[in-house]
Amino acid sequence: AASPVVDEAEAVEFLELFHAENPEAGPAAPRIRWVRAEIGFTGTYQHTSAELAFGARVAWRNSARCIGRLYWRSMRVRDLRAVREPAAVAAECAEHLRIAFNGGKVRPLITVFAPDAPGRPGPRIWNEQLIRYAGHRQADGSVLGDPRYAGFTEAVGRLGWRRPERPSAFDALPLVVSSDGETHLSTLPEDAVVEVPLVHPELEWFAELGLRWHAVPAISNMRLSIGGVSYPAAPFNGWYMGTEIGARNLTDPDRYDLLPEVGRRLGLDTGREQTLWKDRALVEINRAVLHSFAAAGVTISDHHTESARFLKHLEKEERAGRVCPADWSWIVPPMSGGLTPVFHRYYDTPHLRPEFVADEDATR
Amino acid sequence: AASPVVDEAEAVEFLELFHAENPEAGPAAPRIRWVRAEIGFTGTYQHTSAELAFGARVAWRNSARCIGRLYWRSMRVRDLRAVREPAAVAAECAEHLRIAFNGGKVRPLITVFAPDAPGRPGPRIWNEQLIRYAGHRQADGSVLGDPRYAGFTEAVGRLGWRRPERPSAFDALPLVVSSDGETHLSTLPEDAVVEVPLVHPELEWFAELGLRWHAVPAISNMRLSIGGVSYPAAPFNGWYMGTEIGARNLTDPDRYDLLPEVGRRLGLDTGREQTLWKDRALVEINRAVLHSFAAAGVTISDHHTESARFLKHLEKEERAGRVCPADWSWIVPPMSGGLTPVFHRYYDTPHLRPEFVADEDATR
Ligand code: HEM
Ligand code: HEM
Repeated sequence: AASPVVDEAEAVEFLELFHAENPEAGPAAPRIRWVRAEIGFTGTYQHTSAELAFGARVAWRNSARCIGRLYWRSMRVRDLRAVREPAAVAAECAEHLRIAFNGGKVRPLITVFAPDAPGRPGPRIWNEQLIRYAGHRQADGSVLGDPRYAGFTEAVGRLGWRRPERPSAFDALPLVVSSDGETHLSTLPEDAVVEVPLVHPELEWFAELGLRWHAVPAISNMRLSIGGVSYPAAPFNGWYMGTEIGARNLTDPDRYDLLPEVGRRLGLDTGREQTLWKDRALVEINRAVLHSFAAAGVTISDHHTESARFLKHLEKEERAGRVCPADWSWIVPPMSGGLTPVFHRYYDTPHLRPEFVADEDATR
Repeated sequence: AASPVVDEAEAVEFLELFHAENPEAGPAAPRIRWVRAEIGFTGTYQHTSAELAFGARVAWRNSARCIGRLYWRSMRVRDLRAVREPAAVAAECAEHLRIAFNGGKVRPLITVFAPDAPGRPGPRIWNEQLIRYAGHRQADGSVLGDPRYAGFTEAVGRLGWRRPERPSAFDALPLVVSSDGETHLSTLPEDAVVEVPLVHPELEWFAELGLRWHAVPAISNMRLSIGGVSYPAAPFNGWYMGTEIGARNLTDPDRYDLLPEVGRRLGLDTGREQTLWKDRALVEINRAVLHSFAAAGVTISDHHTESARFLKHLEKEERAGRVCPADWSWIVPPMSGGLTPVFHRYYDTPHLRPEFVADEDATR
């Protein structure tokens, strides 16, 4: 990835936004003059800490696919722009997870590592999320664990990762960080990976399935783009909405694909679609997820609550005189869509900056 | 609604499509010459029966919001272009319902009444569907029946409709047809309105709710537009997908809003969203719908089955060298979206003709 000179127009647009929304920072003009000169000399510029924090929060506010944006102002921002060495990046990612977990009261957090600069790209984290589970391909072609990461698991194997002696369905993958031509592999320390064992509020047998999930969802492969400056390593997290685990990760046919087993254990007639056995099993899995997190004292929210919050967010944004971009097909939850108020309306979809960018073609 | 002269380019585009997909009809050129002349003399032109049937079927094929398009070729087309008098239109709408119901083996059908012509608009049906239930506004402001049609119910009251002596939650609305300046109100004959009482495969008390729904969903307020000619009255029907009844009509808060009652009857903790009581009640209502229709011998399909059929349709269309327009937010069912294969992809959205047009701004 080449790191071109910063686009001056993008820088100016951002600085004007920053000063407009932060009147206490004074007028924009002097700062813009300074940044123009800095770009002229160095090809890029340094954000102030306040600009960086604002830029990161607004990038969240502008994430059209995110239903969780009501609390965008309160996200904590760790300014680690001085950190770029792969092992240090990895260690700070572990620290990110500890701070974000916060004893169970999960808090939105972003850690921003060194930016791209002309001729010197910043560090890069190759994992999609800081915590994801390995997919161990078995001799018979099946996958133990998360099939989505079977390819990534093979790749880290080639880089030297040794899978656990007794591989399980929930082995956290190592972090892969590269920077300045060096690629570093590191196992996450145990205390950084808090997990919740999944039990059901009524169905005793559910615990026997041996399911678990990690507490903190932290996306680590999206580039944070602020005012023309790119931060390729800027992992961020919120708390989980239950359906992400219960209606996608555990149930998608190309993920843990648990519906057939849960349907059988529930004693449902899984031979005919019209019994809606899948829909019933889905509800029970999602009840288990929400119940287990709550019982373990780990923040999680259900899709009804997050939908209501999101409508509140839209209202607040409107009152602030802003348009809020939203992508219907991502905002509407993957289960009981029609039951959530976010289903029954359309949204604006302008593309706004600052933003998080998926450099690979994003697919659901 | 003024009825302007037919757009020649649209006519030609359609005739070329017709002849391209129906080689047995011979070359397009002579027909196009004829139609150009006809438009020149009369401002419009008459479709042949074959053109009309093809145009109606392709309008269905082009309906980006419809998941049920696999069987587009087999829709029956009733050519009633000679019918325009309001009472006759209403009588033929009743006949449409009988033919479509077909003893329970519901078949896709469209009845095409007289088109718009310059200076003489065709007849118009004011009902959204041929069968919909009245919403009787009560003294206390609440609505008995379907709140969506409370306004329409008041309007037909002003036109002279007398609601049943003992109004119920499921009183079929009268048809309102206007043509040549005359508006006609007519009650649907009983034998045209077949209904299914809703029972649950296991929960005895479900029958006590006294719910029912009509067998045939026939949209009657969309204009059929073929090759520049508009047919304002062209009611069409397929069979129901269960979620239309169970996850929208019976459950939307501004429709029958049944979740709270069903949740209570199920003994669920309806005070806290995270118990997913809404999701559980939703599944049971939808099971009841599918079970009741099947038990009554009336065609219905579940969202899993229709999703699979739709993917088959996409494949067939692709093999035929056509793009298939599809609107994600309408195609993905309102419950268990993520469980259906239609969720996990994007679609093309070109606007194609012939088409069904909602002249009012369509909102979900
Ligand atoms: C506070 C709690 C949060 C909740 C409940 C939440 C919820 C969600 C959900 C349900 C999705 C869709 C995920 C999917 O379908 O794969 C999503 C996507 C997204 N969220 Fe949030 N989120 C939260 C915090 C955050 C934060 C702190 C950020 C960034 C600072 C963020 C940025 C995004 C982005 C960029 C996406 C799109 C990801 C992609 O394209 O794959 N969210 N969020
Ligand atoms: C054969 C069985 C059929 C099934 C299962 C089916 C299913 C559906 C469903 C589930 C919707 C969405 C409804 C909503 O969310 O409000 C829909 C919409 C639609 N369907 Fe079908 N359909 C069928 C037949 C037909 C036929 C025969 C036609 C026309 C000839 C048709 C044209 C349409 C149109 C135009 C819409 C959009 C309606 C609007 O904009 O409100 N469908 N269909």
